[in-house]
Amino acid sequence: MTATLLLPRWILTMKPGEPVLEGHALVIEGERIAAIGPREALLAQYANAVRVELPEQILIPGLINAHTHSAMTLLRGVADDLQLMDWLQNHIWPLEKVWVSDEWVFEGSMLAAAESLRAGVTYLNDMYFFPGAMARAAIDAGIRAAVSINVIDFPTSYGSGPDDYIAKGLAAYQQFKGEKLLDWTSAPHAPYTVSDETFVKLRKLAEEHDLQIHCHIHETAGEVADSVKQYGLRPLARLEKLGLMSERLIAVHMVHLDEAEITMLAAKGVHLVHNPNSNLKLASGIAPVKALEAAGVNTVLGTDGAASNNRLDMFGEVRSAALLAKGATGDPEVVTARTALEMATIRAAKAMGREADLGSLEVGKLADVVAVSLGSLECRPVYNPLAQLVYVAGREHVQNVWVGGRRVLNERQITSFDVGGLLGRCEDIVGRMKAGMSAS
Amino acid sequence: MTATLLLPRWILTMKPGEPVLEGHALVIEGERIAAIGPREALLAQYANAVRVELPEQILIPGLINAHTHSAMTLLRGVADDLQLMDWLQNHIWPLEKVWVSDEWVFEGSMLAAAESLRAGVTYLNDMYFFPGAMARAAIDAGIRAAVSINVIDFPTSYGSGPDDYIAKGLAAYQQFKGEKLLDWTSAPHAPYTVSDETFVKLRKLAEEHDLQIHCHIHETAGEVADSVKQYGLRPLARLEKLGLMSERLIAVHMVHLDEAEITMLAAKGVHLVHNPNSNLKLASGIAPVKALEAAGVNTVLGTDGAASNNRLDMFGEVRSAALLAKGATGDPEVVTARTALEMATIRAAKAMGREADLGSLEVGKLADVVAVSLGSLECRPVYNPLAQLVYVAGREHVQNVWVGGRRVLNERQITSFDVGGLLGRCEDIVGRMKAGMSAS
Repeated sequence: MTATLLLPRWILTMKPGEPVLEGHALVIEGERIAAIGPREALLAQYANAVRVELPEQILIPGLINAHTHSAMTLLRGVADDLQLMDWLQNHIWPLEKVWVSDEWVFEGSMLAAAESLRAGVTYLNDMYFFPGAMARAAIDAGIRAAVSINVIDFPTSYGSGPDDYIAKGLAAYQQFKGEKLLDWTSAPHAPYTVSDETFVKLRKLAEEHDLQIHCHIHETAGEVADSVKQYGLRPLARLEKLGLMSERLIAVHMVHLDEAEITMLAAKGVHLVHNPNSNLKLASGIAPVKALEAAGVNTVLGTDGAASNNRLDMFGEVRSAALLAKGATGDPEVVTARTALEMATIRAAKAMGREADLGSLEVGKLADVVAVSLGSLECRPVYNPLAQLVYVAGREHVQNVWVGGRRVLNERQITSFDVGGLLGRCEDIVGRMKAGMSAS
Repeated sequence: MTATLLLPRWILTMKPGEPVLEGHALVIEGERIAAIGPREALLAQYANAVRVELPEQILIPGLINAHTHSAMTLLRGVADDLQLMDWLQNHIWPLEKVWVSDEWVFEGSMLAAAESLRAGVTYLNDMYFFPGAMARAAIDAGIRAAVSINVIDFPTSYGSGPDDYIAKGLAAYQQFKGEKLLDWTSAPHAPYTVSDETFVKLRKLAEEHDLQIHCHIHETAGEVADSVKQYGLRPLARLEKLGLMSERLIAVHMVHLDEAEITMLAAKGVHLVHNPNSNLKLASGIAPVKALEAAGVNTVLGTDGAASNNRLDMFGEVRSAALLAKGATGDPEVVTARTALEMATIRAAKAMGREADLGSLEVGKLADVVAVSLGSLECRPVYNPLAQLVYVAGREHVQNVWVGGRRVLNERQITSFDVGGLLGRCEDIVGRMKAGMSAS
């Protein structure tokens, strides 16, 4: 097995407490990290390795986008400056009803994968219909993904209702079992679109197949108020009654929370996905990250879909998480640069149940490695490489990416598939959609 | 006079109410815009013009950064995750005392100019010491700047106190009078660092030379409380008594405001510079933009210095202004994509007193023109080019920039000066600073 020796200026392993390493190298053998150590020692020890010089670059673990709807890149910018329910009910759902198909999800997810790899994202926690199309896209693009068995209580172009969605999701799950790049989640859409009965079915499905549960919860104040009217309970209380509160749950958004709820989340080990930019853009609010940190909840980060963000840019989310927490609370140390990066790496791996393999650069873990250049004039001078990654660098400074030891981005060029062909196919789809929209 | 014919895919003039133009061209003659019209007509009319094809690019007016400290790029990332006063008193001021010189300000300002031009910023409203160095940097870099006659009530490496600062500032102002790229401001640092007597002197100086007044005001809650203790007045009330409230005043930060103050600002025609990211990062808070918009205050945007942001990225500020206003108020229409762009263009030109020449693409105005590519995969698909600029594009998509008709950025390469030489000189300065810091 040929080893590859990465020779960057710095390495930030994200191993808790470990400072930025300088003058070190990282060795990839097969799909895993074989060594991290002083450059000269590893050059001697791995004399026959393929050497990759990465001057002015810093290695970090691949970023994990803990909540997105990949295929919705095809709806990027289709409707802006609206609140969630207006945006969803009057713009997104009607378009999805007409256009979403296996082909549409595949091409949209390939576009999301391309954008993500060029942004240093190596793992997408996806939620959408046509999971088989998402699975094929992730495999073709060479990116890791948690594919969803996604269920909503009304019919769509994908299926007739909950039982149909579950049957189709399970079929895809069985079809792709054993694919190294894929995880799966049981994914009830949200408390306002899923019945008690369906929630219980999806909880049991998760337990039976040992899956995480991926669900939008407490995104808006209106959602909470409506639930109190309909069920006499806030959504979290309702889901707790249904047995959903556990370390399996990846609870997305969670903007509107009271103290007792935060205590409960911490006690149950629920993982929380903060989507700072999507929550701002849809005017949902700002999640109470300071209180969540104080309670010890595992808060991680996601972009949400490109239709609501409108970027799949985890550098942007990391920066926003660090800045927003300071500005909203007056406390500059709630989310430091390191904490914000943890939320997109080591903590996110834990939320996905993958901390043994992902989330940090450590010997034995999978080689999901991102090299970011701090050499451009925008990133100079460098006093503190870690803070520079968060407060200065952007996704455009990602130069090279490896997923499971495979180099999928080489000096900003995607090497795992034909991007030109993809863009042409996306133009065709979008052309048909635009023609349809102007005809209607 | 040879004309230059710019042939983009779209033009966004930022003339109030004008939609995005497609299939149009823009003609530059000398330093001004000579024509904007349908592509075929202008190709015929200007048959001998130099043609510049800009496929997939959108022309916008040069962005105006209405508050920055250019030279402080040399302190980018030197201290993070701190509150304003801790950051200023324990980190920034001690470093400035040792290191700031004419050379340091020149090189730091050149670095800021390079970063700004590559980000589509063609005008810097600067506040710093050694204004002669800033003036030379702007001229050498080919960027517009408002240079400050900056005053603070304590001694620095630049001068002994207010009278010395005023004398030195006026000397620089006289020396560079008539330079086309330069405006000047009278710039008292802040109410907590400037006495009543000095404020009055600087007001009179502004009136005498017809300058705008550039001042940090109401940045933190602590500043307001301290002023009440020391003067028995909130800073704005104190400055109102001193005659500062007028259309000359560019009031920067303004995070902590009550209703009566907002009404007064609107009545007096004061311009306000919102620095969303700096205010978040230094944990100062979120300016009440919704109330300011409702009152009709001319709110514009700035980055602040690279030591507190840590980017001179007006695309970032535009996006943050649009997102924060929604998330903080629950209203997605307070700052739409168009409003956010106005705050960085046409409205900012008004704040600088330059709306006759700058801020929109109109025949007769100065040709400060930026071409942004929406062709990269991250920017696709395009449903609405204006929203795409705000919510999707980043500064890295700026391809070409003209300032006063001179092309200073050509396909992302700066053409107005030697960037490699500058970076080498900055490395030298930073190397000396790092050596000094580790020695102390």
